[in-house]
Amino acid sequence: MKIKINENFKNIKENYLFSDINKRVKAYKSTHPDADIIRLGIGDVTLPLPKIVVDEMAKASIEMGAKETFKGYPPEYGYDFLREMVVDYYKRNKVTLDLEDVFISDGAKSDIGNIVDILGDNDIYIPNPVYPVYVDSNLMSGRKVYYIEGNEKNKFLPMPDGLDCKPKVIYLCSPNNPTGATYSYDELVKWVEYAYESGSLIIFDSAYEAFITDGSPRSIYQIPMAKHVAIEISSLSKMAGFTGIRCGFTIIPKELTVGDTSINALWKRRCATKFNGVSYPVQRAAYVALSPEGVEESKKNLAIYKKNTEMLCELFDKKGIWYSGGKNSPYIWMRCPNGMKSFEFFDYLLDKANIVGTPGVGFGECGEGYFRLTSFASNEDTKKAVERLNKLL
Amino acid sequence: MKIKINENFKNIKENYLFSDINKRVKAYKSTHPDADIIRLGIGDVTLPLPKIVVDEMAKASIEMGAKETFKGYPPEYGYDFLREMVVDYYKRNKVTLDLEDVFISDGAKSDIGNIVDILGDNDIYIPNPVYPVYVDSNLMSGRKVYYIEGNEKNKFLPMPDGLDCKPKVIYLCSPNNPTGATYSYDELVKWVEYAYESGSLIIFDSAYEAFITDGSPRSIYQIPMAKHVAIEISSLSKMAGFTGIRCGFTIIPKELTVGDTSINALWKRRCATKFNGVSYPVQRAAYVALSPEGVEESKKNLAIYKKNTEMLCELFDKKGIWYSGGKNSPYIWMRCPNGMKSFEFFDYLLDKANIVGTPGVGFGECGEGYFRLTSFASNEDTKKAVERLNKLL
Repeated sequence: MKIKINENFKNIKENYLFSDINKRVKAYKSTHPDADIIRLGIGDVTLPLPKIVVDEMAKASIEMGAKETFKGYPPEYGYDFLREMVVDYYKRNKVTLDLEDVFISDGAKSDIGNIVDILGDNDIYIPNPVYPVYVDSNLMSGRKVYYIEGNEKNKFLPMPDGLDCKPKVIYLCSPNNPTGATYSYDELVKWVEYAYESGSLIIFDSAYEAFITDGSPRSIYQIPMAKHVAIEISSLSKMAGFTGIRCGFTIIPKELTVGDTSINALWKRRCATKFNGVSYPVQRAAYVALSPEGVEESKKNLAIYKKNTEMLCELFDKKGIWYSGGKNSPYIWMRCPNGMKSFEFFDYLLDKANIVGTPGVGFGECGEGYFRLTSFASNEDTKKAVERLNKLL
Repeated sequence: MKIKINENFKNIKENYLFSDINKRVKAYKSTHPDADIIRLGIGDVTLPLPKIVVDEMAKASIEMGAKETFKGYPPEYGYDFLREMVVDYYKRNKVTLDLEDVFISDGAKSDIGNIVDILGDNDIYIPNPVYPVYVDSNLMSGRKVYYIEGNEKNKFLPMPDGLDCKPKVIYLCSPNNPTGATYSYDELVKWVEYAYESGSLIIFDSAYEAFITDGSPRSIYQIPMAKHVAIEISSLSKMAGFTGIRCGFTIIPKELTVGDTSINALWKRRCATKFNGVSYPVQRAAYVALSPEGVEESKKNLAIYKKNTEMLCELFDKKGIWYSGGKNSPYIWMRCPNGMKSFEFFDYLLDKANIVGTPGVGFGECGEGYFRLTSFASNEDTKKAVERLNKLL
């Protein structure tokens, strides 16, 4: 063919992180067939869904087979029963939303990727290290991306201090993937004030909010005026174990405007054109998962993951190893010991303790020298891993 | 905010078609409260899903609640079990695909809308009348759209005859929404040859292929060399009643290249960045729906819809009213009687026969003077409608 392709795809680095990890583990296994390898690199939930959730999904599935209860095309923005439940979920967290602010998605990743459709050619500011989707989705559409450096000094919570006062699009993720670092109320106030003063938009990824236990904001809308500067994109994936079920939601308050253009109306139009809504049985499952009863059930799973981060944090505290996350997050972001680089420590850990984690440099160059451990293995495996790390470090 | 928004959104016409229809029906009802209104405007399936399909979905849902059978993130391109079933589905239709050519989606509309992401700034050629998503998704990304006129002379099956030989992106939908018109083998050969010679890409929407009964191609890949010029986007929505379940598939053969760039690789990258796969229970349901047994079950529903189109076609044949579709499609696209305009006939039909259809002009200006009737009402209602039309026309 002689048509033009999107040349911006050539600017996206191929991400070989996880295939590289798999190769190294495979090679190690082939020379050490009896090694009892523990995987603390998993970025996906592992515990089954609560019974009330799967029962609801099964029930709704069966209903699709009967004339009286069959449902055709869902509304593009989500069924009102689920949008109302999202409003209620936020209300329990003291945030008031309008039903029309809520868009049901097939997961946060889709909306984070697609949100660029409604935006013009803005400068994009993204913390580093970072979830790669923010960067790649912007590079694909030809935007210029600037990194805001995360480091030990700012506890991997970069602030707007050094930024100019021009309008920009800023991605924030709190609790952060991969660093687990979580903005405090006061820090988010500064970001919202900066956005307001500079005329910027914050795209706030709150996919890990359910892991927050220290009172830090779980939604950017807990900050005054945030509805004038922020879109919030969230997910049931980690909160309710929905990674395989696929459901999330995006909040675009009607207060969010550029001149007389409503961002909510733009996104509505985008959804109506390029999306046809989320599967009905999935929305029913999400409805139950977000109900007070469903949230209580999911908390049992979160408690199991939490026990893992506690064991790891306790060890690192004892050993005096610097880390972020763990407290409000399923991720622990540790400094590699003895000045080791990320991949050096990866190999060392695999060889000496048969533990697999994720090299921090895989999330951006500011991650070099750091390492991500996750809480999604079993309590037993994590306990064993902690014992091995205790001897090794 | 002072950020830039995507100004191209201003070029998209608001589509008031269905809200306008609803308003007119509501107004009529308020003055005629006892009218027995029959809706032949429905563009969505109405019959429940086969039992084997919903049972599988319920079973897979329950499995998500048990440790041994729980599934996390699905593969971005779909589970291999379902991709293999798509390959098998095509094989039954004498088309050979590679598993890697197949991408599982949450419905054809999403992929039709998102496919523009991987393309550069090409001229876009779209038949008119048309499914609005082709036009709007291109206008949103600032592309120049040219219409290829459908009319009675070409039986609403525009051909490439008058087109220049420059490379372009061409959207074809066969059987067509809204006209029901279906390209023959020879006609598609001409399109594929044109695309090959001009270096163009065809985006072929085959969402209605299961309605084909006269031997016309159900896939563009039945045409020699089509793998070098065409992407095919399809859906389980109409074929298997999945409008509320949300599953489709997109075929991008590895033969499809621009220079040394593989379109398949571009789309793979797009999916890996902006999509996280389709719900596991949905994919299990789709697997059963596409199996030979599932297809047989769905045919029972298709036969009920087909009976409706037959009743309508028989009447129009008897009355000598020009129409396209009906034979290979759930849609009948009729010429409005007595030179009436689309909305004029809408009001006439509502008032004189209490029948609601869809004014053809709502699908583009080439639809003016035409009218779409659909087969998704019940057999009883359609029979009643045919009796009323018999008296009226």
